Amino acid sequence: MILNRLKCLCILALFFAQMIAAPVFADDGYKLWLKYDPIKDTKLKSEYAVQLSFIALTADHPTIAIAVRELQTGLNGMLGKSVAEVKKAVSGSKGIIFRINASEAGISEEGFKLQTENGNTVITARTEKGVLYGVFELLRKVQTGQSIKNLSVVTSPKINLRLLNHWDNNNGTIERGYAGMSLWKWYELPERIDPRYIEYARANASIGINGTMVNNVNASARFLTEEYLGKVKAMADVFRPYGIKVYLSVNFASPRLIGKLKTADPLDEDVRKFWKDKAKEIYALIPDFGGFLVKANSEGEPGPMDYKRTHVDGANMLAEAVKPYNGIVMWRSFVYAADPNGDRFKAAYNEFKPFDGQFADNVIIQVKNGPIDFMPREPISPLFGAMKKTPVSMEFQLTQEYLGWATHWVFEAPLFKECLETDTYAGGEGSTVAKVIDGSVYKNKLTSMVGVANTGSDRNWTGHPMAQANWYSLGRLAWDHNLSSEQIADEWVKMSLTRNPQSVEIVKNIMLRSREIYVDYTSPLGLHHLMGEGHHFGPEPWLVKAPRPDWTAIYYHKADSTGIGFNRTATGSDALGQYEPGLRNKYADPDKCPMPYLMWFHHVSWDKALPTGRNVWEEIVHKYYTGADEVLWMQKEWKKAEKDIDGEIYDNVAARLKTQYKEALWWRDSAVLYFKQQSKKEIPAQYPKPQRTIEEVKKIVDVYHVR
Amino acid sequence: MILNRLKCLCILALFFAQMIAAPVFADDGYKLWLKYDPIKDTKLKSEYAVQLSFIALTADHPTIAIAVRELQTGLNGMLGKSVAEVKKAVSGSKGIIFRINASEAGISEEGFKLQTENGNTVITARTEKGVLYGVFELLRKVQTGQSIKNLSVVTSPKINLRLLNHWDNNNGTIERGYAGMSLWKWYELPERIDPRYIEYARANASIGINGTMVNNVNASARFLTEEYLGKVKAMADVFRPYGIKVYLSVNFASPRLIGKLKTADPLDEDVRKFWKDKAKEIYALIPDFGGFLVKANSEGEPGPMDYKRTHVDGANMLAEAVKPYNGIVMWRSFVYAADPNGDRFKAAYNEFKPFDGQFADNVIIQVKNGPIDFMPREPISPLFGAMKKTPVSMEFQLTQEYLGWATHWVFEAPLFKECLETDTYAGGEGSTVAKVIDGSVYKNKLTSMVGVANTGSDRNWTGHPMAQANWYSLGRLAWDHNLSSEQIADEWVKMSLTRNPQSVEIVKNIMLRSREIYVDYTSPLGLHHLMGEGHHFGPEPWLVKAPRPDWTAIYYHKADSTGIGFNRTATGSDALGQYEPGLRNKYADPDKCPMPYLMWFHHVSWDKALPTGRNVWEEIVHKYYTGADEVLWMQKEWKKAEKDIDGEIYDNVAARLKTQYKEALWWRDSAVLYFKQQSKKEIPAQYPKPQRTIEEVKKIVDVYHVR
Repeated sequence: MILNRLKCLCILALFFAQMIAAPVFADDGYKLWLKYDPIKDTKLKSEYAVQLSFIALTADHPTIAIAVRELQTGLNGMLGKSVAEVKKAVSGSKGIIFRINASEAGISEEGFKLQTENGNTVITARTEKGVLYGVFELLRKVQTGQSIKNLSVVTSPKINLRLLNHWDNNNGTIERGYAGMSLWKWYELPERIDPRYIEYARANASIGINGTMVNNVNASARFLTEEYLGKVKAMADVFRPYGIKVYLSVNFASPRLIGKLKTADPLDEDVRKFWKDKAKEIYALIPDFGGFLVKANSEGEPGPMDYKRTHVDGANMLAEAVKPYNGIVMWRSFVYAADPNGDRFKAAYNEFKPFDGQFADNVIIQVKNGPIDFMPREPISPLFGAMKKTPVSMEFQLTQEYLGWATHWVFEAPLFKECLETDTYAGGEGSTVAKVIDGSVYKNKLTSMVGVANTGSDRNWTGHPMAQANWYSLGRLAWDHNLSSEQIADEWVKMSLTRNPQSVEIVKNIMLRSREIYVDYTSPLGLHHLMGEGHHFGPEPWLVKAPRPDWTAIYYHKADSTGIGFNRTATGSDALGQYEPGLRNKYADPDKCPMPYLMWFHHVSWDKALPTGRNVWEEIVHKYYTGADEVLWMQKEWKKAEKDIDGEIYDNVAARLKTQYKEALWWRDSAVLYFKQQSKKEIPAQYPKPQRTIEEVKKIVDVYHVR
Repeated sequence: MILNRLKCLCILALFFAQMIAAPVFADDGYKLWLKYDPIKDTKLKSEYAVQLSFIALTADHPTIAIAVRELQTGLNGMLGKSVAEVKKAVSGSKGIIFRINASEAGISEEGFKLQTENGNTVITARTEKGVLYGVFELLRKVQTGQSIKNLSVVTSPKINLRLLNHWDNNNGTIERGYAGMSLWKWYELPERIDPRYIEYARANASIGINGTMVNNVNASARFLTEEYLGKVKAMADVFRPYGIKVYLSVNFASPRLIGKLKTADPLDEDVRKFWKDKAKEIYALIPDFGGFLVKANSEGEPGPMDYKRTHVDGANMLAEAVKPYNGIVMWRSFVYAADPNGDRFKAAYNEFKPFDGQFADNVIIQVKNGPIDFMPREPISPLFGAMKKTPVSMEFQLTQEYLGWATHWVFEAPLFKECLETDTYAGGEGSTVAKVIDGSVYKNKLTSMVGVANTGSDRNWTGHPMAQANWYSLGRLAWDHNLSSEQIADEWVKMSLTRNPQSVEIVKNIMLRSREIYVDYTSPLGLHHLMGEGHHFGPEPWLVKAPRPDWTAIYYHKADSTGIGFNRTATGSDALGQYEPGLRNKYADPDKCPMPYLMWFHHVSWDKALPTGRNVWEEIVHKYYTGADEVLWMQKEWKKAEKDIDGEIYDNVAARLKTQYKEALWWRDSAVLYFKQQSKKEIPAQYPKPQRTIEEVKKIVDVYHVR
């Protein structure tokens, strides 16, 4: 009786204590996928608690300390209990054991094994970093509600360099950034370390990202000054224990801009000395500095061609400078000359293919997934597979430059997978892009996958709360490109939003369809480059004049009274000729070309019949209308999950979906009203006519051109 | 015994519950001065609890709902108890009573009385907004630990328009902003209302700010398009219940830029119609829209002079357009032509004084506190007092463009007070700037004080945590310019950092000295405009060439072998002639001119003896050295308060103080090494020689010129 009263009073006390200490803030997205919310399934929770009752380790290392802290934070959050760190496994109870064995077989330096041994959960790795990755894998299993009773994970990353590329400027702005200012507070560094740098490193480590290019590829030479290198060093010191190396984008003209030289000619001795001295200076500060990323002779940036030298001259000079320190050079292939009668599609291949094999062995060519520029859908860049003796890395864009900024919900994993799974046929059938870039086709040691970051100073990191999933996807796919989009979405939703099975399914379903919906209402059937000039926001398919011909829309869609689309077959620009026959043949025949790529490769009649039973004009209209309608579907589905989603996040996304629908209609009306003029056809009767004239629609995009 | 065990166990349970629910985040500054931390003084706490046990009100109004919610949040935080809302005062207990009486005597429409009546705390006001202000006053008394037993506050704001001016651009950047991106998410509006807009409104209401100009004075015409007005309307709807009106900065060329007219000539009928139509459109959306702010014909902005018209023509045209809706026009006097032999000091007076009395009665001339541009110390603008028939408003700059950005700790209230308390002598002795702008000298009805905002998307709003106090100061002084800097600092520290009396004194003391310290190590003795070109960061006293002569440093300091300083007496530019004799005489004689203004008005010999016993050269050196040393003093003092300050804020400020010292030495070395060359004198032996050459120091500012 007294015991009962005691129990009762204690429960009451607990209850009140909880009330007072209740969180003041709703979920603002700051914690990303590392939320570690309490597990509601009490059976599962106690199972985990039994399995994971201690952490046994012997190593004393900053990375191990981080791993332990993460485990303790995570398990405390999810299981509501603290897990002690011990020197030796506790007999009679089950726990986590860290085991470092430098010569462990079956895994790479960064890999790990996560195995159940005598009831204990053992994380074996060759390095501390491997242990940290194993810890995040274990936490992920708990976060996503998987059993951990019979673990037998053996995994190593398929790609060696798994990187974020920040297009962040020294003034704090981010080129094509839609989530606030840069995370890097240059004017505070090196004295102040913003606590957020640590959160950034944690998040990256949790998905296996092991490097970050901290500054924009349109690079300021300022970053190579003593003043700024001191700041970069401070960042590198923060990131190091999380297994993250720092890289810099460099301005090729730096010898002139900050080195007091009259030239930046890569064959000039003083220039070569400048870079060697600079490398020496950098590595003295940051011994594990990753290397340089270069955008040369592209869109106004300086490069070796300013001195009648080649990409090889430029890249190899830099490679020589960083070679003594095991640094690398990432040289971008995003180079294209303005030619009104040319085909920008072909530029990168034409410029780089002839140099195959001539680059130093610590140079990798960084190639965007498609031949143009991160369009909602692109065929693969012909450089994948074509470079047989020079390694090529993948550059994906996480920030949604052409995917509706931070207002449209687009889950990008399906876009990445579509590219990775495309067969280049370069080393015979089955030579997918993934196998080209992971080195298995040409046995490259240097392998890399880069995501142009979508992070910024916004509290939730990515502006659109759902865009966190794109950052997450990049890391997961760089580790293992065999993961499916669905698996990635499943993990992310459970870790970030809800574990309620019904709502997980609803949200996953929206995510998995979101990119196709975006394509439908902006650029179906292989249409591309229809967006507003310069800002790349909203539709501008009527754009006929820009500072460069290949920055217009008509250059790409070529709509006229006879039809629509870019003929890239042998009778046209023959861009298709850059592909291996196996791939080329999939696209070459307009009657067999998959519909999503039709206008990428063919100029077809408005009347051409399609497998859907509609002709080209009708199909275009159909796609724009159904795409916009599907945003309403997204809204409806999202509403269904409301009860399981934090209120702040729910409202945030719901509001953005309203904007998304408004802008989907803007795209739809722009396209159908404009192409109607070209096709001289009517919008089929079953579709409601746009509520506005083309002049009215044009007026909207004009607003965004007013400075 | 059993009871004891029970008690003990319950305490244990409470303890564990608290552990688990302990806040994950340290204080990140997000809550500003509305932290409402629990009061530790139990006696005081229970006194408040007894006094404030209910909230009695009858009105049903959004502003009242906000007032109640704020009281409940505040009292719950500080007293740990919830205070119920009731319809009628509860007899037998003491509480808060709201009383609205539209004809209440002794207060203005925005004023309030906060009085103890029969033990109850009664807030009387003529409007709901007055009640809200009264609520914040009451909360402030509790926050700062004052007795509330015998309240008899009767107060009305001295200035009618108390405004923030955001130099925020449509792309989210902020001109001269050092705290992240704009708070306004233009691409999300109007569909999404960022919860932070509400926090912004709360914070402003708490200090009496009643208007916000949401966009940069270098204005994009985009804000006047239908698209953007819809966004501005959404913001206005959020701010309205907090008593905050929205204003827009307008681009004078808007009729051309978005109105399809060929001219923006203010006397053109179509142009006048454009503005009238635009005003009609705006007021249909936002019935309480505040009005327009205009920067015309200044630094490249368009204006009436492009059409050979005058400021009067331009301002009155806009005034006519908004007049039917009680809108106003704020026309900036910050206008200066480039003249290498002129004196920029005189420009605003020369341009505007001749128009005195010609402006429409809903026009106010917005004048920066000093004649140049927000220097660390300036004498007052001669326009204060000179405009006798046209109202003039005060523009202070909160953002620290010339005050060390977000890295230097400068409490600005003393700067504001120094200006406000300066006697213009315009209406006889005692005609302080404060009395000019509050309308008491010339009986103006239109009165305004504006702060150029220092807010941004950084979590703590202002970048430097201590810079929150500057925002706070602006609001408090606009309400009552008689408040002392010390009182304001006292309030802010107690509300934001600590209530421990010793630490309050320590932090206040740093704050109150901080601005003078900054002046000492950057621009002592009336030196001005020595900062880096364009970015205005760091020192560049050697700057001889810039896009305009009046953007150099030598234009202002005029250091040569004979001496240093700008002769603005009758033998020089005679800028002093723009002041009334009473003020002029204070500065005119180089032997009597207060030392802080010496080089503002006189070119003096390096050898001139000063009251300190040092000559001019020695005094300059002395000030730069002691100023820099005092940053070390700030560090030491801050350290003393560590135990009473939240760890995250403490570390943040401590790190910034390190940067501040580094940069103070940079300023010091720049100035003494450069002026040494002019004076051909040595640094007196008692000061340690700079550890670097002038070339080395110059190299640092050059880094910040690298694009």
